[in-house]
Amino acid sequence: MPKLSERGTIMPESPIRKLAPLAAKAAERGLKVYRLNIGQPDIPTPPQAVEALHNVTRKVLEYSPSDGFRSLRVKLRDYYKSFDINVSEEDIIVTAGGSEAVMFAFMACLNPGDEIIVPEPSYANYMAFAILAGAKIITIPSRIEEGFALPPIEEFEKLITPKTRGILICNPNNPTGYLYSLREMLTIMNIVKKHDLFLFSDEVYREFCYTGAPYISACHLPDIEENVVLIDSVSKRYNECGIRIGTLVTKNRQLRHNVMKFCQARLSPPLLGQIVAEASIDTPREYMLATYNQYIERRNFLIDRLNQIPGVYSPIPMGAFYTLVRLPVEDSDDFCRWCLEEFSYEGQTIFMAPASGFYSTPGLGKNEVRIAYVLEKQELGKAIEVLAHALEAYSSRTK
Amino acid sequence: MPKLSERGTIMPESPIRKLAPLAAKAAERGLKVYRLNIGQPDIPTPPQAVEALHNVTRKVLEYSPSDGFRSLRVKLRDYYKSFDINVSEEDIIVTAGGSEAVMFAFMACLNPGDEIIVPEPSYANYMAFAILAGAKIITIPSRIEEGFALPPIEEFEKLITPKTRGILICNPNNPTGYLYSLREMLTIMNIVKKHDLFLFSDEVYREFCYTGAPYISACHLPDIEENVVLIDSVSKRYNECGIRIGTLVTKNRQLRHNVMKFCQARLSPPLLGQIVAEASIDTPREYMLATYNQYIERRNFLIDRLNQIPGVYSPIPMGAFYTLVRLPVEDSDDFCRWCLEEFSYEGQTIFMAPASGFYSTPGLGKNEVRIAYVLEKQELGKAIEVLAHALEAYSSRTK
Repeated sequence: MPKLSERGTIMPESPIRKLAPLAAKAAERGLKVYRLNIGQPDIPTPPQAVEALHNVTRKVLEYSPSDGFRSLRVKLRDYYKSFDINVSEEDIIVTAGGSEAVMFAFMACLNPGDEIIVPEPSYANYMAFAILAGAKIITIPSRIEEGFALPPIEEFEKLITPKTRGILICNPNNPTGYLYSLREMLTIMNIVKKHDLFLFSDEVYREFCYTGAPYISACHLPDIEENVVLIDSVSKRYNECGIRIGTLVTKNRQLRHNVMKFCQARLSPPLLGQIVAEASIDTPREYMLATYNQYIERRNFLIDRLNQIPGVYSPIPMGAFYTLVRLPVEDSDDFCRWCLEEFSYEGQTIFMAPASGFYSTPGLGKNEVRIAYVLEKQELGKAIEVLAHALEAYSSRTK
Repeated sequence: MPKLSERGTIMPESPIRKLAPLAAKAAERGLKVYRLNIGQPDIPTPPQAVEALHNVTRKVLEYSPSDGFRSLRVKLRDYYKSFDINVSEEDIIVTAGGSEAVMFAFMACLNPGDEIIVPEPSYANYMAFAILAGAKIITIPSRIEEGFALPPIEEFEKLITPKTRGILICNPNNPTGYLYSLREMLTIMNIVKKHDLFLFSDEVYREFCYTGAPYISACHLPDIEENVVLIDSVSKRYNECGIRIGTLVTKNRQLRHNVMKFCQARLSPPLLGQIVAEASIDTPREYMLATYNQYIERRNFLIDRLNQIPGVYSPIPMGAFYTLVRLPVEDSDDFCRWCLEEFSYEGQTIFMAPASGFYSTPGLGKNEVRIAYVLEKQELGKAIEVLAHALEAYSSRTK
């Protein structure tokens, strides 16, 4: 049997993925499993987006343009304009989800051995795409005690080497729910400018900012237009994660030219997803507002309840629909596994994401989990009750 | 402005892509442009596949499993069985088109610097995916005079170095329409076995074999089960190129394990495409047969007419819906460009793919073009008439 490539071998498996079969088994045993582990909300996709499928009359489900339909890109341009992001439809490339946008951005900007700096905890799949590109993610820790604020500029500067080619941020942040302030974004801008780096900015949660603080896009930053690569997706804002439509947006013409070669190699982004995405952009304000209010309510309820459990601490997330929570356990990997494998309370258990998957620095986040508030309030309430009981039982068990 | 990666810079642009804007301009000038340049047939997608979209009732267009819906994989398993390809649903990974399957196969099997041998002319995008993986495609020329048969085994052996990790074939072949014989497949099997190589086999055109000669899948070959990676797609067989559903099929468990890490990183294949693909597999035999007969008729008509034009030669393609044609011109890149930019006959012109995009060896295929018989017979007839006039005019022009 021939030897496999190194990249596929070294790529770590996500702890969430490792636990998924245990959750399936728990459900098979008849347990009600509260799934707080991934960003798959229960909120319905806008009905007119689904209806767009019912209205498909084309006879041939043919290739679409490699950069996506112009009509979709024009609508996206106008959507971005409403957030003061001034780009033309030419600056927008439609991708198979935000995932493909990250991959193409890395492939087009990073050579093997190049480094990018990413505040941790961070979305685990950035690491996977960096490995595919042969690049290296250098993490800079942010801390729960500071609410996961951006580390000071000196900490960034310490990590910059001749191999550093970029900084990646996710704003609002998955997994922490942190929202970068204008001051923080200007700090990032200054480093990017000083060292002529790429700034990869994943802003798929922009609709979900809860504190009244302004959302500052990387595209709002002056003077670094050619450096910014915006990663975006319709998945979270219209709750249509399955259609696989994202975008890579950049004013950097040469970068777009190179990314387009990758796009042409894979021929086209999903046709049907584009049809749904285009209809979604017309979603009435009421739907967006109702979704937003749902998340606000869930967030307030969740954080309040979590912080009432002895030994549990969660900062108040400012955006997205996740929070990173400190638990009174030593090893959250083991605790999350135990919840699925050995514990139940009144026929229920919970599936949470151990934070170890979001950190690269060994030892960090060992007592943290990510909770996605993707269930309705009543379900969330029950899940937290189960968590409280689980913590109690786990602690007596290990004493 | 930061420097871009080498891979994006060295990746060549396809000659077809370079000509596309000229075709668009010709159409804008009011010309009827016969598009024989890409594999986008005019044949309708099976109606019940489109209807499956009309029946979507789910409220949330959520993520699907990273390896695709089990129900789809089970149907694919049964489909493969009808071609004597005996795989389980566990051996099948659903991808975003055959393109993603090629990319993941290369990423999982090839390290930077590794080499794979590919008979040329070949599908241009293999090269693009090899560049993304940092691997190198070494081409072995097949010749129009020999109807693009597989080169002798000694020619392969000459190219094998310590860096050789695989062989890639496309069967039936794009762009030549060649169908490998049992003898040829056994030759490949022997090389693969002797040198313990991967065999990447792109068989997306298996439905379209016209000569009565049997279709021999790489999966039919004994003893090399762990070496074979089947690349497949529903795009061509059900004429639904836009839905982006393909598969990577392998009995090699460790390889699947590593590919799954890439699949998990990009979360899931397109949900809606999977719904359409699943409905497509139930397409009545009559549709498949009608499509097949269409291509047979077009092929016979096209090849017959082409070979009547003075100086033009096309072998008879045995499969797929392309043929590689020798023209009485010195530089088919220039001729194809000229057809779009400077020529018209009774308000019509033709868009063909210069063969240079399918060859890596400099100088090969300079007088060849690929013609896709993706238009109905009447249109094809007109297109060939236009081609005959174009060749005449081009030759008087350059004398």
